[in-house]
Amino acid sequence: MTIVTLLTDFGLADSYVAEVKAGILSVAVDAHLVDVSHLVSPGCIVAAQFLLARSWHRFPIGTVHVVVVDPGVGSERRALAAGSRGHFFVGPDNGVLSEIFDTATTVELTVPRDAAPSFHGRDVFAPAAARLAAGAALETLGPPVRDPVRSRLPSPREEEGVWWGEVVHVDRFGTLITNLPGAVVRGGSISVGPTMVPLARTFSDVESGGVVAFVGSGGTLEVAVRDGAAAAVLGVGVGASVRTR
Amino acid sequence: MTIVTLLTDFGLADSYVAEVKAGILSVAVDAHLVDVSHLVSPGCIVAAQFLLARSWHRFPIGTVHVVVVDPGVGSERRALAAGSRGHFFVGPDNGVLSEIFDTATTVELTVPRDAAPSFHGRDVFAPAAARLAAGAALETLGPPVRDPVRSRLPSPREEEGVWWGEVVHVDRFGTLITNLPGAVVRGGSISVGPTMVPLARTFSDVESGGVVAFVGSGGTLEVAVRDGAAAAVLGVGVGASVRTR
Amino acid sequence: MTIVTLLTDFGLADSYVAEVKAGILSVAVDAHLVDVSHLVSPGCIVAAQFLLARSWHRFPIGTVHVVVVDPGVGSERRALAAGSRGHFFVGPDNGVLSEIFDTATTVELTVPRDAAPSFHGRDVFAPAAARLAAGAALETLGPPVRDPVRSRLPSPREEEGVWWGEVVHVDRFGTLITNLPGAVVRGGSISVGPTMVPLARTFSDVESGGVVAFVGSGGTLEVAVRDGAAAAVLGVGVGASVRTR
Repeated sequence: MTIVTLLTDFGLADSYVAEVKAGILSVAVDAHLVDVSHLVSPGCIVAAQFLLARSWHRFPIGTVHVVVVDPGVGSERRALAAGSRGHFFVGPDNGVLSEIFDTATTVELTVPRDAAPSFHGRDVFAPAAARLAAGAALETLGPPVRDPVRSRLPSPREEEGVWWGEVVHVDRFGTLITNLPGAVVRGGSISVGPTMVPLARTFSDVESGGVVAFVGSGGTLEVAVRDGAAAAVLGVGVGASVRTR
Repeated sequence: MTIVTLLTDFGLADSYVAEVKAGILSVAVDAHLVDVSHLVSPGCIVAAQFLLARSWHRFPIGTVHVVVVDPGVGSERRALAAGSRGHFFVGPDNGVLSEIFDTATTVELTVPRDAAPSFHGRDVFAPAAARLAAGAALETLGPPVRDPVRSRLPSPREEEGVWWGEVVHVDRFGTLITNLPGAVVRGGSISVGPTMVPLARTFSDVESGGVVAFVGSGGTLEVAVRDGAAAAVLGVGVGASVRTR
Repeated sequence: MTIVTLLTDFGLADSYVAEVKAGILSVAVDAHLVDVSHLVSPGCIVAAQFLLARSWHRFPIGTVHVVVVDPGVGSERRALAAGSRGHFFVGPDNGVLSEIFDTATTVELTVPRDAAPSFHGRDVFAPAAARLAAGAALETLGPPVRDPVRSRLPSPREEEGVWWGEVVHVDRFGTLITNLPGAVVRGGSISVGPTMVPLARTFSDVESGGVVAFVGSGGTLEVAVRDGAAAAVLGVGVGASVRTR
């Protein structure tokens, strides 16, 4: 039973996700479908990159990951399938799969003549995912691609011993997730914009309402308010500057 | 492994959907459950009809579709199960299953004495779906029904060579989905209320921010704004008039 | 195929739920995952208790229930697994599992050294659920716990023949769900705050827009507005006082 994960900006109110799943199950009848998220902001490629980077490697070898955040659907942008470290991926060639290209073999999917130009998730990516889930070899899905579009997530940088990074995600709890790796964080505090925030092991080390920074579950620095929402309390969001001291 | 799809207005915050699934899995232990949507506006039968019409036929033969948007639950309205083109359907007799009645065999479900009058989804429809998923013959579920309630979705009409239709759904992207079939759309533009909108193959054929009409993934005319939301830009929603020129 | 249910406050936009599922499926490859809800208000233990109480017993014997609403994650609060009436439960020792402790055998889970202090759902509870789903005996997961934290939901009380209760949940339809058992409700009406509400069998017994009280699908008194939202119409929510007359 192959796992197929789904990460899209299709939302949960329409039938779009179900139409994709119907296509997969019509070919790979015993695929185990797991939703990663369908609430990526419409067209927001970097948000999908972030969620993919956190999650794909936690699934078993052989999992097929369908990633469709595709503001250029129907244009000349290519449709891709890739294999990396025993996992498979399908998605548009717009950078959303950048996370895995360093170690990936990538092929270009054929867009069927009757595919709806506005719904390649259903008519191009679901059939490809289904074939992979059913055991097809990646190479049989299309010719190799050597230059997939890469869109790097923002990187932290060091200047005179201080590391500068930024908030790359705000989660449901209002916690600010940054791109500063846990390993560069030293000393007793960090700064989020103009605000000094003390470092701790986790948010339960401070009192209710306290602002705290810690190495989060994704391995990077996070800033939280215990029993509160750091994004609201500090008034910052994705893109906010963070630095070590 | 029979697929059972679920389409309701139960929302995602309460335990209602899980209670339905528990009932199905208690009888059909290896049913493969697929959510179509649980975010239909409370009691909105036509919205459920639209989502059902788009999705059911994409699933494999033998799939059981549970459709519970049921503002009259607990009243004298009948509870139905139907078979059509190799698929099965359960839901209230309020028109929500109209899509399939032209080719369906329909039976009336017995409402158990201890069914909660406010939750037939759990106490009437889930058990019926489970029996169908476990292989029971439709005829064993109840006596035949020859006059199910039919509630047609609005139809387009032609007047002097011009086709008039309307917006029947607004999706997550703010795209306006109309009931004008692709086949009647000719010429270079259509009108949405007072606004002329150029026709194209899909939204990626226009520049960012451009308004465009095209034949969508459901086979009918759609109106979108590339990288935007047509409903907001044009200020229209479900029921808005659309015509060919 | 063991069923594993998931009830959290992780939301549906982040990858947190998928990371938990990945951990479960990596060990129990054919677990059947069912979401109860991930939209519990952040940290709201009583809301999770309410949803758990409604749903767990409807699943088949052998089901594993993962309940992670855990505002004290990473603190000294214990991590628990429990068995009760043939079902299994994992969750934090903060009262969220109180529902089942009267008949439960409970053990304390070991927190692995490398568990993220802010994400025991993924690093402590998912592995424990996976082991239980894969058939491990409860006793092998940790030493017995005899004093789990209990947090009772509010109880109704009787005074001079009048029962007093309160609204314990407001559902998607705006229906007020109270803790007054159906059996204590007699006579023709009940009171919600200052408002007298007539009793009926269910909401379809009154006209559209009518306010009505009835014994709901969870066995307690509910107050609804037909085709409307009682919470909005009556201007009350969780905690509002309700009494029989």
